[in-house]
This record gives sequence, structure tokens and C-alpha cells, in this order.
Amino acid sequence: MSLPAVSHPANPDAGAALPPSREAVEAVTQALAARFGNRLVTSLAVRQQHGHTLTWIPNQAPDAVVFPQSTEEVSEIVKLCAAHGIPVIAFGTGTSLEGHVNAPFGGVCIDMSQMKRIIAVHAEDLDVVVEAGVTRKELNEHLRDQGLMFPIDPGADASIGGMAATRASGTNAVRYGTMKDNVLALKAVMADGSIVQTSTRARKTSAGYDLTRLLVGSEGTLGIITEITLKLHGIPEAIAAGVCPFPSIKAACDTAIMTIQTGIPVARIELLDEVMIKGFNLHSKLGLPETPMLFVEFHGTDAWVKEQSERFGEIAADHGGGPFDWATKAEDRTRLWEARHNGYWAGRALRPGADTLATDVCVPISRLADCVDETKRDIEESGLIAPIAGHVGDGNFHTQPLLDLADPEEVARVQGFIDRLVKRALAMGGTCTGEHGVGQKKIKYLELEHGAEAVALMRTIKRALDPQNILNPGKIIAL
Amino acid sequence: MSLPAVSHPANPDAGAALPPSREAVEAVTQALAARFGNRLVTSLAVRQQHGHTLTWIPNQAPDAVVFPQSTEEVSEIVKLCAAHGIPVIAFGTGTSLEGHVNAPFGGVCIDMSQMKRIIAVHAEDLDVVVEAGVTRKELNEHLRDQGLMFPIDPGADASIGGMAATRASGTNAVRYGTMKDNVLALKAVMADGSIVQTSTRARKTSAGYDLTRLLVGSEGTLGIITEITLKLHGIPEAIAAGVCPFPSIKAACDTAIMTIQTGIPVARIELLDEVMIKGFNLHSKLGLPETPMLFVEFHGTDAWVKEQSERFGEIAADHGGGPFDWATKAEDRTRLWEARHNGYWAGRALRPGADTLATDVCVPISRLADCVDETKRDIEESGLIAPIAGHVGDGNFHTQPLLDLADPEEVARVQGFIDRLVKRALAMGGTCTGEHGVGQKKIKYLELEHGAEAVALMRTIKRALDPQNILNPGKIIAL
Repeated sequence: MSLPAVSHPANPDAGAALPPSREAVEAVTQALAARFGNRLVTSLAVRQQHGHTLTWIPNQAPDAVVFPQSTEEVSEIVKLCAAHGIPVIAFGTGTSLEGHVNAPFGGVCIDMSQMKRIIAVHAEDLDVVVEAGVTRKELNEHLRDQGLMFPIDPGADASIGGMAATRASGTNAVRYGTMKDNVLALKAVMADGSIVQTSTRARKTSAGYDLTRLLVGSEGTLGIITEITLKLHGIPEAIAAGVCPFPSIKAACDTAIMTIQTGIPVARIELLDEVMIKGFNLHSKLGLPETPMLFVEFHGTDAWVKEQSERFGEIAADHGGGPFDWATKAEDRTRLWEARHNGYWAGRALRPGADTLATDVCVPISRLADCVDETKRDIEESGLIAPIAGHVGDGNFHTQPLLDLADPEEVARVQGFIDRLVKRALAMGGTCTGEHGVGQKKIKYLELEHGAEAVALMRTIKRALDPQNILNPGKIIAL
Repeated sequence: MSLPAVSHPANPDAGAALPPSREAVEAVTQALAARFGNRLVTSLAVRQQHGHTLTWIPNQAPDAVVFPQSTEEVSEIVKLCAAHGIPVIAFGTGTSLEGHVNAPFGGVCIDMSQMKRIIAVHAEDLDVVVEAGVTRKELNEHLRDQGLMFPIDPGADASIGGMAATRASGTNAVRYGTMKDNVLALKAVMADGSIVQTSTRARKTSAGYDLTRLLVGSEGTLGIITEITLKLHGIPEAIAAGVCPFPSIKAACDTAIMTIQTGIPVARIELLDEVMIKGFNLHSKLGLPETPMLFVEFHGTDAWVKEQSERFGEIAADHGGGPFDWATKAEDRTRLWEARHNGYWAGRALRPGADTLATDVCVPISRLADCVDETKRDIEESGLIAPIAGHVGDGNFHTQPLLDLADPEEVARVQGFIDRLVKRALAMGGTCTGEHGVGQKKIKYLELEHGAEAVALMRTIKRALDPQNILNPGKIIAL
């Protein structure tokens, strides 16, 4: 069995003591097996696949994995677990990066991969209702023929439920917003198994508390998202994209600031440092000059895309950047964004055989150049290789330290670097996580970022909505 | 005294019984007078000005009005009221429409009008930090020299705190979103007097529960908003606006749908029915043909605004609308939007001497034409005059029934009409309020819209965050 080594003090205020007893776990597992047959799996391999499998966070497997096919089945499972005080952990595609799907107290993992219905596409209203297990690529595949798209793109082909639960975003949040801005309504199963519909398909409402946004980003700790109503967009008539080199990180950041301030509705504007560009060249053979770069994309009509591109080129030139080459050919764009999305592998190409992980701070854009510059100095002083890629329009950037996880000294060095990076971003008025979420690993920074009163308020909400602490315990809030 | 005729059953689950005892009210009033001097007012006239003063909802005045000058003073006031179980009601400019600022259980009104500091403008980051009493016009006046604007425009010159508390929006939400989309962070005083900062100035974050969105739209029932960090936008280089007549409501709605689906980023797109146009002609001498109309506005560069306007004109013509006359002259635009904003008075011009009030349903845009058509039939069958104006890009529209409040039969007829209108919108997948909020009058529709489980969840949140039920009691949630 994989019950955790981590001990959790029994806390009567937080409901049932965790971990639950073996008897309770077995009672629930047997009841689920009787109800769900071979959709309840307890083999070690499958359980471990449903713990955290990426980065250096240790795998903490659940006791069992169940594959529901409807919201009502999720409700049944949660009611059963609630009756026995057993943790329930929702699982999408397992691409989260901070230990979100680990089961530190064991319990039942609810795998959403058999909930893949696209329930209704409302083309006139530019919205769609999907089950939580649909992935963003599956959704876009389904929408393409109708000239529609769901733009939020965190890189991984994550499930829509998981994206909502972590408040995901990615390269084009600068234009289209994050999941917080693109979820109109949710259906969710609460800690007592009740099913809540948070809102309607109306584009806006002032009818009561914003339950939708309370659940978006709650990482399965307040409710289990089973259905999502999303905003859609028409596929743009014209798209232009290109790369622009800069003499410095600051010149690239200042160009991004001016681009946004001028009102150019840039669809993507990605900062890559010279180390990351080197990785791209090694991995994707892009043949780019190894200097800081902006990768940009514009959406609109032919004329408008041309005007945006030309204006951006002028702003870049004013800051010593360029030449800016932009292309409207789909294959050129695809090559560019594939390279960007393969950043993880490109980074690893810089130190073959090394492990890696991702950081995720976000600062006000005016502080971005300072934050990146100080971070690069820290990387150098720490003797690390750590390429940088940033969603510069939002002030969000990732470093990707390369390390040997078997070397404790190197692990400690990287941990020290990440700790300084987070504190640097917080000191600049930023956040410890722009889009990856808190999971297990960022809990320790929450109070530093939000203050004790705000974290106490989050804790009050968690306790009120999940008095037994069975919904993804050990994530976001330390009870 | 104006303590309420409404009786409220003492409910131990919901904390202290309301209304509070006279002794408690007097103890608090005396303590506030000692602390705040002439910033504590108990005269009947001032108290009545701080109850609901618009529409037909009866005025329910607080016991006292206090004018704090800082978040810390608000915290002091709330702590004092909490210690005595006295209600506290936050007050901005008093322009809310559903009885939001009424004091059905008496208590202390916190008037934010002496909290008008614009704390910091961050031009590079396109954000601003303001105190809750700053109005949107005051803010835009302050920003103009820097080429910046805060676009959300509910018509009234409301306070930013009040706009956040009601999740306000208005004519240009179709382009710039509602308050939910434009508040980056809040400072708020909670029911125990603690001060919470909900987030940072980072453009996006996944760091914990979305306390910002939980407070936006909570109408002072979960916390008292004292400071707001808002997103800003650059003032567009070019603006074009114009009016376009249509043969029918449906043709106008279909034009709006196609405009948005095509990806034209229209900044405003307002539907006016022929009755409202008649009111405009009477009140503002616009000389328009009395047929359904769209008033539209486009923001961008000269070339882009021209392209948007021409494309919109083509779409309108395809639906039998037009001619579409658009102008880029500021004085023409001002005349147009002044007429639109004076809709309240224009409506009243249709029946001089009559009283009026506003409805606020919002439906998926594909149902808007049906909803407006059925509503117009209902208006006719009910023998009412009720012009219609709608934020058609969001599916939100207002009717403005004209009536004599002294005539009980007419009041009953209008109440019946409003009830049918709300139920019609809900049956079409819409909401009872797109932007005005719940206040006192929409409480009865919340369960019909959201279901018993979602309302129970809202009640759980309210009880957890305000166990004594002292924050604006009697609004949003019936405890």
C-alpha cells in the first residue's frame, strides 16, 4: 500500500482525522468495486500513474482510482467517501506541476477521462458546454469546422476540468485572458455530494456570489468540477506571427509594455532569453541569433494584422530591436509555436540527461525586466543552467533549472534559487504562481504573498465548504 | 426612528438576532460620536438620504451615518459594530437600483465619500489603486492627461467601491468586460474588522482562492471594500460611433450576433427599441427615425476603426438595416452617448409626470430577439409604456415601465410584468440581473435561477464569513 509517510495531526476543527483508517479505506474500495466493476482500479501501477508523475515532487498514490461517466456518478462516489471520511482527488490528464494530484493521505482518485462528452456547442452565443475530461485539443478539433476556437493554451493538452481547477492560462492569455475569464459556468460536486450549477449561459450576471470564480483555481479542494461552460471565439480571419531579436531583456520588455499600452491587441507576446534560444536552436534547428527574443502573434483581418505587425516592428526598432520578420503563412507559424511549446525539451537539450522543473512567478510588467535580470544573475551566481521563457504581456515567466535529481547538493542549490526567485517576485508586488497553481509545493508562500488575514479567510472558506477536509486535502491550504 | 416594520426571525444559526436592541444601537452611536465627532451624523434627513432613494423600493434608513477617511477607520467601525451585533451598510453614491443600501434592521451606514484618494497610478502596468469613494468620472478626469482611461461605464457616476460591490458593467462591457474582469485586487474589511488584501498587482495569478471575485458582486454582505486596484486602458487613438436603423428587433439582434462572431471588437453596441427612440427624440431632439436602432462605437487606429465601421455597415445591410452613418467627430459621439445615458429621462418624456424603474435581465444572445419580442408583446398586452434599451453584445436589456406609484392597480400590473420578464429570461437560460445586482428585490429569484444547492452554498459562505449577519443584512441571501 502507498499510504503516506507524511503524518497529519488530527484536527477536530478540520473535520475527520486524516489519514483515514484502513477499515474505512477498504469499506469504500469494496463498495466502489461493487458499484463500478472494472471502472474501479487498485493496481499499484495505475495508482502510481494517478499520483504526481512530473518534476521532483515525490509520487503519493491514491488507494484506488475510479472512472465515473457522469456527474451523478461523481456525486455517488463523493457521498460514499464523505460517509467514510475518505479523501477524493479529481484527476484530469496529470499534467499539473506542483503535486496537485498527489494523495498524501491516500483516498480515492476520480479520473475524469471517461467524461468526454461535448454536450452542446452554441455557435451564435459563442459558448460550449463540455464534460471535465475533454482536453483542449479535442475541443478545438471538434470546433474547427464551425470556425470556432477555444484559445486558452497552457502548452500541455490538459483537460478542461483540470485547466479550470488550476486557473490555467498560457501564451495567449494576454489577448484572451485566463480560465477565470473564459469559464461562464460550472457544474460541480461539493463535499457532501450535492451537485451545484454555478451560473447560467448569460454573458454576464450580478445575481449573487461568484461561485464560478470561487471554484476556478480551487484545485479540487472546494468541489469537483464535472461540467464547464466556456466562452468561444471565432477563428481569426488572418493571423501573423514572427520573431524579433533584442539587444537586452530590458529592450524586449519595454517593447512589450509599449505594445500593450498603445492598444495593439497582441495575441501572444513571448519573451525568450538567449539561453532558451540556444536550446531552441539545438532542439528545433531554428537557426536564430542567440540573443533575447520576442515571439509575437497578431489576430484580425488581413489589413489589421498587417497594421499591428508594422506598428509592433516600429516600436521594436525604437527600442533597438529588430529586424522584425513576420509571416502569415500557417506553416511558418506552426514551426514557431511548436518550438515554443517544446521549450521543455529545448531546455533539456542544453544539458542532455539532466532533469528539470519549472518555476512560475508573475510580476507587474514594469518590474519584469528587473526581475528577469536579477534572476539571470542569480542563475549565474548559483552555477545553474536555467533557460527563461515568459508570457511577457502578463509579466509571467518560467525558468527551467536543469539538474541531476540524484545529486543532493544540486537539488539544494536549485531549491535555494527557487526560494529566492519567489521572494524576489513577491517583493516586486508579484505572485508565486501565475498559472501553475499552489498544489503542495507553494503552500508555504501563500501567507507571504497574501498576508495572514487573507489566508485565514481562505481557510474559513475551505472549512465551511469541506468540513471533513476530504476534497484534495493537503493542497492550497494547510489546515 | 425608522427601525423597520419588517420583522426578522431570530436565527441562532445566523448569529445575533436582528434587529439589535435599542441599547446596543445607542451604545454604538455614542461610541462612534465620541470617536468621529461630526463625522457621525444621526439627523433624519441624512439617514434617509442613505437609505434607498431611487425607484419604488421603500426607504429604510440606518440609525446613523459615519464618514471614515481610511481603511483603518472602517475597521474600527466594523469592530465596534461587531462587538454589539449592529448591522453595517457600506454606501457609495446611492445609485444602486434594488435597495442595496437600505437598512431593514437599522444599523450604521458607512459612507465612503471621504475616501477619495487615488493612491497610485502605474501607467506602465496599466493599473491604478484607488479608495472606494472615488467615482468613475473623477478617476477618468485624473487619468486623462496620461492618456489612460477606466472604461467601465454604468451610466451613473457611481463610486468605484459601489461598482465593484455590485459587479457593475454598462455600455462597453462587450469590449472591456465587467467589474469582475477589471478589478485586479481589493482591500476589504471583513465582518470581524480584519483587513484583507485579496491579491497583488500581478495581471494573473493561480495563488489560492479567488477572494477578489468572491467580494466583487457581494454587495457589502461579505466584506466592505475600501481600496480597489483596477486595470486601465490607453485612450484609443481613434473612435468612431454611429447609429443604424433596422426593420425589426430581430434584424438588429442578428446584426449584433454576426458582428461579434466575425471578431469585430465593437466597443459598444446598444439596442434601442422604437419606443425608446421616440423618447430620445422627445428628450434630446435627435430627430431619428422611430424604428429599432443599434448605437455602436469602435475603438482603434484610424484605419482599423474605418475597417470595423465599414464591415459593421455591410453586416447591417445584409440584415436589411441601414444606412449606417458613422462619425469620428468627438462632438457627434458625445451627443449620441449623452442621449443614451439620458435614457432614464428620455423614457420619462414618454409619459410626463410618471414614475419609472428599471429591469435588468440578461439572456444568451441567441435568445435576445425572442426575449425582447415576447417582452414587447407583454408590455402591449399589459397596457404599459415601457421603452427598451439593451447592451445587446452581452444579451442584457433594460425595460423602463412608466407608472403612477400612487395607483395600486398600476403598481400590481407592473409587478406582474416584471415577474413574467424575469421568469421568461430564466427559462431562456438567462439571469435575473445582468448588472444591477440582487439587493432586496431579486432575492426571491435567486433559487429559481441557481437552484437550491447553489443558493445553499452561497448561504454557507455568508454564514462562514459573517456569522453574526451584520454585513448589509437582508441583501442577496435570505438567512
